[in-house]
Amino acid sequence: MSLVKSTAMRALNGSFSSSSSFLVKLTQPHVRRGQAQSIRAFSVIMSPPSKAVVYERHGPPDSVTRVIELPPVEVKENDVCVKMLAAPINPSDINRIEGVYPVRPQVPAVGGHEGVGEVHLVGSAVKGLERGDWVIPSPPSFGTWQSYIVKDQSVWHKINKDTPMEYAATVIVNPLTALKMLEDFTTLNKGDSIVQNGATSIVGQCIIQLARIRGIHSINIIRDRVGSDEVKGILRELGADEVFTESQLEVKNIKDLLINIPEPALGFNCVGGDAASLVLKFLRNGGTMVTYGGMSKKPITVSTSSFIFKDLSLRGFWLQRWLTPDKAKECRSMIDSLLSLAREGKLRYGMELAPFNNFHAALDKALGKQGSQPKQVIRF
Amino acid sequence: MSLVKSTAMRALNGSFSSSSSFLVKLTQPHVRRGQAQSIRAFSVIMSPPSKAVVYERHGPPDSVTRVIELPPVEVKENDVCVKMLAAPINPSDINRIEGVYPVRPQVPAVGGHEGVGEVHLVGSAVKGLERGDWVIPSPPSFGTWQSYIVKDQSVWHKINKDTPMEYAATVIVNPLTALKMLEDFTTLNKGDSIVQNGATSIVGQCIIQLARIRGIHSINIIRDRVGSDEVKGILRELGADEVFTESQLEVKNIKDLLINIPEPALGFNCVGGDAASLVLKFLRNGGTMVTYGGMSKKPITVSTSSFIFKDLSLRGFWLQRWLTPDKAKECRSMIDSLLSLAREGKLRYGMELAPFNNFHAALDKALGKQGSQPKQVIRF
Repeated sequence: MSLVKSTAMRALNGSFSSSSSFLVKLTQPHVRRGQAQSIRAFSVIMSPPSKAVVYERHGPPDSVTRVIELPPVEVKENDVCVKMLAAPINPSDINRIEGVYPVRPQVPAVGGHEGVGEVHLVGSAVKGLERGDWVIPSPPSFGTWQSYIVKDQSVWHKINKDTPMEYAATVIVNPLTALKMLEDFTTLNKGDSIVQNGATSIVGQCIIQLARIRGIHSINIIRDRVGSDEVKGILRELGADEVFTESQLEVKNIKDLLINIPEPALGFNCVGGDAASLVLKFLRNGGTMVTYGGMSKKPITVSTSSFIFKDLSLRGFWLQRWLTPDKAKECRSMIDSLLSLAREGKLRYGMELAPFNNFHAALDKALGKQGSQPKQVIRF
Repeated sequence: MSLVKSTAMRALNGSFSSSSSFLVKLTQPHVRRGQAQSIRAFSVIMSPPSKAVVYERHGPPDSVTRVIELPPVEVKENDVCVKMLAAPINPSDINRIEGVYPVRPQVPAVGGHEGVGEVHLVGSAVKGLERGDWVIPSPPSFGTWQSYIVKDQSVWHKINKDTPMEYAATVIVNPLTALKMLEDFTTLNKGDSIVQNGATSIVGQCIIQLARIRGIHSINIIRDRVGSDEVKGILRELGADEVFTESQLEVKNIKDLLINIPEPALGFNCVGGDAASLVLKFLRNGGTMVTYGGMSKKPITVSTSSFIFKDLSLRGFWLQRWLTPDKAKECRSMIDSLLSLAREGKLRYGMELAPFNNFHAALDKALGKQGSQPKQVIRF
């Protein structure tokens, strides 16, 4: 185990109590344990040991991750030790483990990127947080798939404890993406419309609901599937104005399908390929399509005339680019408003809570091994 | 000949002296001529007859256009009668005649969209223009392929007569596109760079020169061709920093080719297909590609990650959208600065002057019947 690796591990897992790390402990248990104990003798505050999903190399998540116990960590004067309550398995978490995400922690690392926890211990200089408070790391940071996290107090954002836990755990990566995308690209006014593909995704469901709250119509495209009428009903119940399967849009003039809905100025694409072309077809002259995902793994193809004569703009959105430390205040304010909607039942989406002690079963579901499954949220 | 058609024709050709039009004259020469003569008896000022390239239906330009003589037109108090000196055959002129351009005159129509002329007669209320002045219709308007045009004085922009005629005739459609695209999408500072395909086009050549004047590096992509070294030399002589053939860019990391040139924030695409992908590859994170043409007739294909992780924006530019009457002042100021550069020899591009009495030979060249040819500029 190189020094570089163990240093990286410490940085990712919060502040360790000594030069030991769990990895060093694994390889040199006797020598290092003794050293750690000698520091404990100075009566520093220590976290409990942390059960964590760890990967030491990039690769298929089901084979490179394992659940191990990390040793206690010193809780320094500005640190807060948080007992995690819940954390989702997001596709981006999987891509980070696979090593295909543009920004990823140096291995070895603890998985996960967002979640909610309860304050367990606070350092002597910590203000505004106390044992029992619910907090989320905001901006989100690496390593939420573990039972205890020790990080500087600036990392933690206190939230209302009346929030349903699974929404608190998942508020950033998907709902905040939906909210930012609705606000950042075009000024939308009441009565305007947006169009999106991948409307059954959690971001898609959030867009429908956040648009509806603003009086903005949504035109939603879903893939052809068994039970598409049922899916349409669910999306309409969330507030969707129109829901079309892709095959319904194989018509000469797609805009003839819009009745009492203006042509959309803004579109969202998380699929690519033909499904992206359908979004472009709906857009009005001068409209913008924002790509935030590529579920079909197909590129986006656009005609020259779409740019020149229809004046379309194509942009991209990546929440992580925006989630810089200087945006923490704005981010937290948006989180609060989203969680408020969740408490009121105005922001809903399907999830499945999965016990941490059965992590790999949840991971298999998240990897799609059992077909389409609800978002898996680990319950610690 | 319907009334609608003859009314449309009059509107396009300026103000006629009576309810007669050349088309009516053609079909009912005796009756209508008599009517026109009776109005002339009131001593209104009349233009000379105008020799014009006319098309009465959309279709292949070489078969639907013919050169005919239009009858004299009244020069009303605010009108200026201009004797045309030169006007180019632009690809968009061809597309208008073919009927495939999004905005096109109602047929029957006179061809052409930009050009330069000399004031021949002015109406009694015209100020600031007199016989002998050089003027260009600005914003450009339909019907420049004719020997005399009568239009309201507001249409005409007086220019410096020291300007080489062929540059005055062609300053709007291509050079103004280049200038607007350099200014409208990204703030470029001295030392920055741009990348473009189709660098041998007139817009491409203008971009090279206008960028160089601003201290902006240009990275230029040309198609593989016999004599590409010679073409590279010509573009370098205009101020190009780098010129690559498409096949030279079949490398693993395209950016390794940039030495002492920063990654470009702005790219221009007038080709589409793979040539557009090459522009995208050169762009830096957060860069913008502006599409203003599609010479390959192939669409633009973009990966999802280009939008999400590289944060690229794709936009389009169409000069005609910007050239609204309220932009006339800004347009004229930009024209003046471009013509000033042309007079100083700082803005150059290849053209071929073609005599009007051999219009169809020039049209054949513009249609590509003799392979790649210089821009054809009709000399009246």
